[in-house]
Amino acid sequence: MERLKTYPQHMAKLITELAKMPGVGQKTAERLAHYILRIPPREAMELARAIEELKKNVRNCSVCFGIAEEEQCLVCSNPRRDPSVICVVEEPKDLWSIERTGQYKGLYHVLQGHISPLEDIHPEDLTVERLMERLSNGTVKEVILATNFNVEGEATALYIQKRISALGGPGLKVTRPARGIPHGSYLEYLSSAVLADALEGRRAF
Amino acid sequence: MERLKTYPQHMAKLITELAKMPGVGQKTAERLAHYILRIPPREAMELARAIEELKKNVRNCSVCFGIAEEEQCLVCSNPRRDPSVICVVEEPKDLWSIERTGQYKGLYHVLQGHISPLEDIHPEDLTVERLMERLSNGTVKEVILATNFNVEGEATALYIQKRISALGGPGLKVTRPARGIPHGSYLEYLSSAVLADALEGRRAF
Repeated sequence: MERLKTYPQHMAKLITELAKMPGVGQKTAERLAHYILRIPPREAMELARAIEELKKNVRNCSVCFGIAEEEQCLVCSNPRRDPSVICVVEEPKDLWSIERTGQYKGLYHVLQGHISPLEDIHPEDLTVERLMERLSNGTVKEVILATNFNVEGEATALYIQKRISALGGPGLKVTRPARGIPHGSYLEYLSSAVLADALEGRRAF
Repeated sequence: MERLKTYPQHMAKLITELAKMPGVGQKTAERLAHYILRIPPREAMELARAIEELKKNVRNCSVCFGIAEEEQCLVCSNPRRDPSVICVVEEPKDLWSIERTGQYKGLYHVLQGHISPLEDIHPEDLTVERLMERLSNGTVKEVILATNFNVEGEATALYIQKRISALGGPGLKVTRPARGIPHGSYLEYLSSAVLADALEGRRAF
């Protein structure tokens, strides 16, 4: 980058590293680097250490493949969670989005992605087999397929649903979160696809 | 923050540190932390190290108070720069903005702030005395006061101009960058203050 030439070497290096982050362009990276230049060294070291400690101390939960600091994550190791329900999500961030609702008391399974032939991501690249293993002992009564509501997420949900129905075991329900009108919306601003979903899924009032 | 409670400890810590940066809110900090979680450890360590190295290796230039990796900065130590002109700026980032024009061949002096009684910042908190020392040996023929064009910057420029004129030496010019219409503007969108400045400063065509 032309702009980097005027900076001292270590400043240019930090700007380059910061600019690799998503949504951080060259100018934002420069602004952040200037901020780091200005703050007391102790504060800057705290930031650097937080990055290092995160990478050193997190791993995949051995059960659900979510983010864990121990062998099992905080959800899997919590005896008060309901082991009869597993919510399947694509990424750890989806897990945390659901946790923040405070409504869900079951367990999770993180696929670590979605099926996408275009991106060369196939079922065997995901943690589907481990999910099937978790379903094999009869504890689980419901699997909620909470993959994203886009093409890849739907394809992934469909694949897993087929795999589960091939198990043939009775008493294992497969569900998907409701499609519909998002809380707080005005009907006039919603797309036809959203409205069509919501009408099709209408419920007794 | 309520949202942090669902994250493992090291994730929450990184989000907290990232959210301290200017223009980075809670949601952006979460997005960046998720990115750092996802990338290979080596890349994350590069970012952490870039922060640490910047803080360890930069210091104030002993001459101009800009950012240096040696005792003197890249500008002050460059024998091809014109020592008869000093451009006075508030912060290192202002220096780099001017360097990027590629037009300026003189030296700099970084005040490390501006005079602002409201923020309890007074001339003695800035590097003004060191500037006066630099002007005392007769090498400098022009001082360009490139502080910001706002209340604090104008007050700071005025203070320094008075200090220099009190030196009483002849042959030391004090200038200020031109006020006027920014390159690329449409007249209809400019404020009256900008247009008034531009008209007052009009030049033969």
